[in-house]
Amino acid sequence: MLAGLSVLKFLDETASNSPAPGGGSVSALAASLGAALASMVCRLTIGKNSNISIQFELESVLIKCEKLRAKFTSLIDEDTNAFKKVIDAYRLPKDTTEQSAQRTAAIQAAYKEATIVPVLLLELCADTIALLKIIGEKGNKNTLSDAGVAVLMIGAACEGAAMNVRINLANITDLSFIEANKIMITTLQSDVNNSAHQILFRINERQFSYK
Amino acid sequence: MLAGLSVLKFLDETASNSPAPGGGSVSALAASLGAALASMVCRLTIGKNSNISIQFELESVLIKCEKLRAKFTSLIDEDTNAFKKVIDAYRLPKDTTEQSAQRTAAIQAAYKEATIVPVLLLELCADTIALLKIIGEKGNKNTLSDAGVAVLMIGAACEGAAMNVRINLANITDLSFIEANKIMITTLQSDVNNSAHQILFRINERQFSYK
Repeated sequence: MLAGLSVLKFLDETASNSPAPGGGSVSALAASLGAALASMVCRLTIGKNSNISIQFELESVLIKCEKLRAKFTSLIDEDTNAFKKVIDAYRLPKDTTEQSAQRTAAIQAAYKEATIVPVLLLELCADTIALLKIIGEKGNKNTLSDAGVAVLMIGAACEGAAMNVRINLANITDLSFIEANKIMITTLQSDVNNSAHQILFRINERQFSYK
Repeated sequence: MLAGLSVLKFLDETASNSPAPGGGSVSALAASLGAALASMVCRLTIGKNSNISIQFELESVLIKCEKLRAKFTSLIDEDTNAFKKVIDAYRLPKDTTEQSAQRTAAIQAAYKEATIVPVLLLELCADTIALLKIIGEKGNKNTLSDAGVAVLMIGAACEGAAMNVRINLANITDLSFIEANKIMITTLQSDVNNSAHQILFRINERQFSYK
């Protein structure tokens, strides 16, 4: 399990001449880091804010952030596993016409499966950014730069995931699959980007005002 | 040492109710991940490209990426340590006028020191993005999405570092220190952002063309 490695070892594995873990797993890790920072800001707000309704709201946000963090962390491995299946499919024999057809079908199936992980990552990034909107508005003022970095990590993870979806789609021949996925990721990407900009603007406003 | 922790444990520590590690250390880790992916793309290009001058160039780029990765990884701890010194300074006694003055001076010194780490992070992000420009142009076409995620990680690390510099500057009273740092980070931030956009555009162009 990649997340069981030390940070140093994970970095060494990434930097090595093996293509996995690569950009997909790194994007999932960036999202995990974003969710972790979001949870930290919740924890440093709960109990330090006299407004009981804010406390309750951030307790519920914290539970959701921790669930998302667990999902993001599992995607670190899932992305690498899906990528390995594509490599395995390419290594299938292609000596006969039948083998060649089976190999082509296996490659197509593997690319479709490899698309599922970054699409899920994108969807979960959209869920996290919705929570960061609340955190940016109601989180402890002393931890707003941490909330800001959380937004940056989710934003980068979302862009990385979209990049990985597109690179898989470029190898897929099923046009309706391509079209459906393109529409979905464009919508999610623009949702996350717009929200990220709004939250960063609001964080900046709260951080450098005396209100 | 934070980078010696498992990825899971690092995430748990980040998510905990202790303010460190926070956004500063996470930004340094994001930069480490970006440098690691940059190194991977170099390794997957060297030996697979028949152009000997590209091989030589990317071997030299790889050495620089690995040095940057080591520096980024050391900044994960350095940021947390610098932050802890600020907390320690705030905990100094302030019962007498003399103690109070000493405490104020210690807080100011600690904030200045805490500014050094993200400024260095920003400078190193600018160095890395210059290398990613070469990688995006000459790297193995099959690994361009990894180079793209590297750019995203360096971009997010740069924005996170700038956020951390600004939050420290807001607590510093030395106006010439503030001014010098503000000019520096604005220049570095715009350098990194502009280059990141250009590289991502070029990667997209290479990835989805048949040339």
